[in-house]
Amino acid sequence: MTVLLLSCPDRPGLVAAVAGFISDRGGNIVDADQHTDRAHERFLQRVEFDLAEADGHDRFATDFAPLAESLMMEWSLHREDERARIAILVSNLGHCLYDLLGRVALGEFAADVVGVVSNHDHLAEAAGRFDVPFVRVHDDDELTATLDDMAPDLIVLARYMQIVPSHIIDRHPSRIINIHHSFLPAFVGARPYHHAHERGVKMIGATAHYATAELDDGPIIAQDVIRVSHRDDVDRFVRRGRDLEQLVLARAVGLHLEHRVLTVANRTIVFE
Amino acid sequence: MTVLLLSCPDRPGLVAAVAGFISDRGGNIVDADQHTDRAHERFLQRVEFDLAEADGHDRFATDFAPLAESLMMEWSLHREDERARIAILVSNLGHCLYDLLGRVALGEFAADVVGVVSNHDHLAEAAGRFDVPFVRVHDDDELTATLDDMAPDLIVLARYMQIVPSHIIDRHPSRIINIHHSFLPAFVGARPYHHAHERGVKMIGATAHYATAELDDGPIIAQDVIRVSHRDDVDRFVRRGRDLEQLVLARAVGLHLEHRVLTVANRTIVFE
Amino acid sequence: MTVLLLSCPDRPGLVAAVAGFISDRGGNIVDADQHTDRAHERFLQRVEFDLAEADGHDRFATDFAPLAESLMMEWSLHREDERARIAILVSNLGHCLYDLLGRVALGEFAADVVGVVSNHDHLAEAAGRFDVPFVRVHDDDELTATLDDMAPDLIVLARYMQIVPSHIIDRHPSRIINIHHSFLPAFVGARPYHHAHERGVKMIGATAHYATAELDDGPIIAQDVIRVSHRDDVDRFVRRGRDLEQLVLARAVGLHLEHRVLTVANRTIVFE
Amino acid sequence: MTVLLLSCPDRPGLVAAVAGFISDRGGNIVDADQHTDRAHERFLQRVEFDLAEADGHDRFATDFAPLAESLMMEWSLHREDERARIAILVSNLGHCLYDLLGRVALGEFAADVVGVVSNHDHLAEAAGRFDVPFVRVHDDDELTATLDDMAPDLIVLARYMQIVPSHIIDRHPSRIINIHHSFLPAFVGARPYHHAHERGVKMIGATAHYATAELDDGPIIAQDVIRVSHRDDVDRFVRRGRDLEQLVLARAVGLHLEHRVLTVANRTIVFE
Repeated sequence: MTVLLLSCPDRPGLVAAVAGFISDRGGNIVDADQHTDRAHERFLQRVEFDLAEADGHDRFATDFAPLAESLMMEWSLHREDERARIAILVSNLGHCLYDLLGRVALGEFAADVVGVVSNHDHLAEAAGRFDVPFVRVHDDDELTATLDDMAPDLIVLARYMQIVPSHIIDRHPSRIINIHHSFLPAFVGARPYHHAHERGVKMIGATAHYATAELDDGPIIAQDVIRVSHRDDVDRFVRRGRDLEQLVLARAVGLHLEHRVLTVANRTIVFE
Repeated sequence: MTVLLLSCPDRPGLVAAVAGFISDRGGNIVDADQHTDRAHERFLQRVEFDLAEADGHDRFATDFAPLAESLMMEWSLHREDERARIAILVSNLGHCLYDLLGRVALGEFAADVVGVVSNHDHLAEAAGRFDVPFVRVHDDDELTATLDDMAPDLIVLARYMQIVPSHIIDRHPSRIINIHHSFLPAFVGARPYHHAHERGVKMIGATAHYATAELDDGPIIAQDVIRVSHRDDVDRFVRRGRDLEQLVLARAVGLHLEHRVLTVANRTIVFE
Repeated sequence: MTVLLLSCPDRPGLVAAVAGFISDRGGNIVDADQHTDRAHERFLQRVEFDLAEADGHDRFATDFAPLAESLMMEWSLHREDERARIAILVSNLGHCLYDLLGRVALGEFAADVVGVVSNHDHLAEAAGRFDVPFVRVHDDDELTATLDDMAPDLIVLARYMQIVPSHIIDRHPSRIINIHHSFLPAFVGARPYHHAHERGVKMIGATAHYATAELDDGPIIAQDVIRVSHRDDVDRFVRRGRDLEQLVLARAVGLHLEHRVLTVANRTIVFE
Repeated sequence: MTVLLLSCPDRPGLVAAVAGFISDRGGNIVDADQHTDRAHERFLQRVEFDLAEADGHDRFATDFAPLAESLMMEWSLHREDERARIAILVSNLGHCLYDLLGRVALGEFAADVVGVVSNHDHLAEAAGRFDVPFVRVHDDDELTATLDDMAPDLIVLARYMQIVPSHIIDRHPSRIINIHHSFLPAFVGARPYHHAHERGVKMIGATAHYATAELDDGPIIAQDVIRVSHRDDVDRFVRRGRDLEQLVLARAVGLHLEHRVLTVANRTIVFE
């Protein structure tokens, strides 16, 4: 199965053009999903198809390029046997890290973890259990160099509590996924679980999104909530929040790795 | 906005064929969503588009018919100003009825309630409050005759506790929506809320589906659940279940009236 | 069934003292639930019990008063046959109003709607359908006078889009319930659904809370969320948000009317 | 913090008796939650309290025994520094196992995993990564002997696909937790995800419960659901189901280990 992801200015006939192109080359569309963003007049599409020839991937790309260019498309083509290289950044909290390492070990993602990077030593043992290289970094330069070495396709901020320098974010557009707690209503500033507890919220949430220059403000990939009550103290808020964080982060990573996420302006289109 | 709903045997080139047909006639596709059911080799699609001419609806239908026939399509075309005629069947419980009448009164659906039909007198007052005809029926013949008179596009079983005769179901395929409670795991037989309570379930659910000959076994349109605990007695189970029933039923009715639901074998494809 | 609600400074022996008092008078505790708020060193309790004598309500209150005073309790005692007087304030949107009127008509709450008050004429018809007085008010003085006449036990702001004057809020502590949309993360200012849509949120929520001087910041009684996607345009965001608003508001009203809600500082304890 | 869990025939004065006993010995009740099961006339309670003397645990138990006996109580007293011994039984699927091992490694539970037992070799590596003994068993006798050696306080069936012999279940009442998928409505027999997919369910669920002689029919501890659509093929149903299974199982294990679960007849009372 090959996946074609594309985004271009909207105009009549796009669905027909893409479907016709694939169909003319003997390809068989297995699943197609598209969306038109009215506000930005943008067309976005994900097509899963079987190529006529198993090894025809490169030829297809070569043939498709002129059409794509004429329609001002941003596009990418993903072969079935592609495996993504993931770098995971962590600080002190290991719940998301363990969850991701377990999923990769079980083969849930078409991906390998090429390294765990941290500003602490605390989670070296976790990486070691899964035979994944662990790199302790002390400053932004070390972080940059480490990521350059790892050459990841995807960077996951698995409760990484440092600011990621903007040049790293710029170099990996829509390829850095962050997770953070979310509340109804929102609480900004330090100790958000404490504030949410003081306010007596009845639900706590988690949001996974692509990192942008404004760290917690990037396009949202996945969200979920969990019900709490006055019986839950702050510690239980935090623990239940962690359950949610690891679930929502894993879901976002999975959607990204299956090439189901496109962005337009500051929002995602998730073809699930 | 015009909506085209279609279902046909799967074959290569269908997306291209439909999109090309619309595009060739100057129509502008605003939203298209399709699905291929592998198990039954069936292609299903919903297309929202603007016609080139505001009054071109009939001409479009005439032109489309030969293509549809050649592809063995079942299809329907819905104009924007269509209003559906709804008949609501009830027994003693009024929560779903009041909810639907309120929504129609507020203009939420492109539909009118042409009548409330019941095997009891109990809810005549509710219908009266909304100036909707109420018909008390005493047997299947009266029910059949009443529905024939009303000529509804959609029949909603809003907690109707009688068996609907199979000839009525056969006459309205995918046009009768029923709602019933659901549990994890399921409880069959009488007094299901009591059994669920005895078992100490932590969630109760509701399922809205098209009625088929096996009443509670038709294609599922919408489902949802609500959390309960040992603190909830059977009465609260029932009351919270009612909240859910009215919400899920209204959602299913809305999806149907927006022409978002297709069926294949015993499942629905809900294009939302 | 009698319900005793109480709140007092925490100290050892409170559970034993209250239970002993009821038990000594031949009362039978059917359900008791309590909570200690550590941050404010406050004990809160809800006790449901059968009195030894069916008409012993007043005597119980008289006897309990000295104990309550010695423990610096705030408390209230509710007899089974109590019916609350509800005033509903609305503006242009009728979904919450219809839902509440339907529930009251069906006897879901031990309450009567004594009036619908609005700064518009738009929903007079809705009130009329349920034979409930409708009062159009033009300024705060008329609103104040109207509410004085109605003497409500509970005021429900069912999507009332005006500021409620602070002297009205002060006169009805923990007796005004408001509903508003909520998002993860939050969007402040005008047109929140539009902002949430632009950001591509995957869930929208609703929060019911007691009104306080800072209108949207009072103690939260109930919250819930509903899943949305990029396929939902702003109109569908708004409509699905309305479904949620009416469900969450009805839940909060029900919890309040069953005497299940206490507040401490700016949070609620919901004994459900 | 000490936790007292108790269950006894209901009678007036029980709350007062227990609270008075603790208060008389200088203990300070931090949290108390109780429930009366009307159907079985049974009183159940969980009390968290600070002992007057840090080492007074045994004395308290000795003193409490006569009161408990006079009231026909089943009860248990849990000291703060208690650590439970967990045995995990698995077959081929590792997602719940990895999740539990990760949580224990991070100190989320007051518990140690004393062994992973399996009827396959497949997950030996997973246990090895966390330095937990792995035992492959070939028949019921080996399983019985292995569990006897491990002397677990809690047995977790983490997707263990064999029948657990009834003598093992009898020996560990309310101390074996199982997880299984659940659907609305339910599907019995083999390949349930396939049947649920054919039926087009919109939600899939998971249920964690104590194992009883009828394996999937024991008292329910925790349940949750996740939304699916026609876009999800069977593989995605299974994968999303796995996410849910691990979350719900971990929640049930946590509730059990915090001594928050009591059973009466075939239901649980979960004091959360």
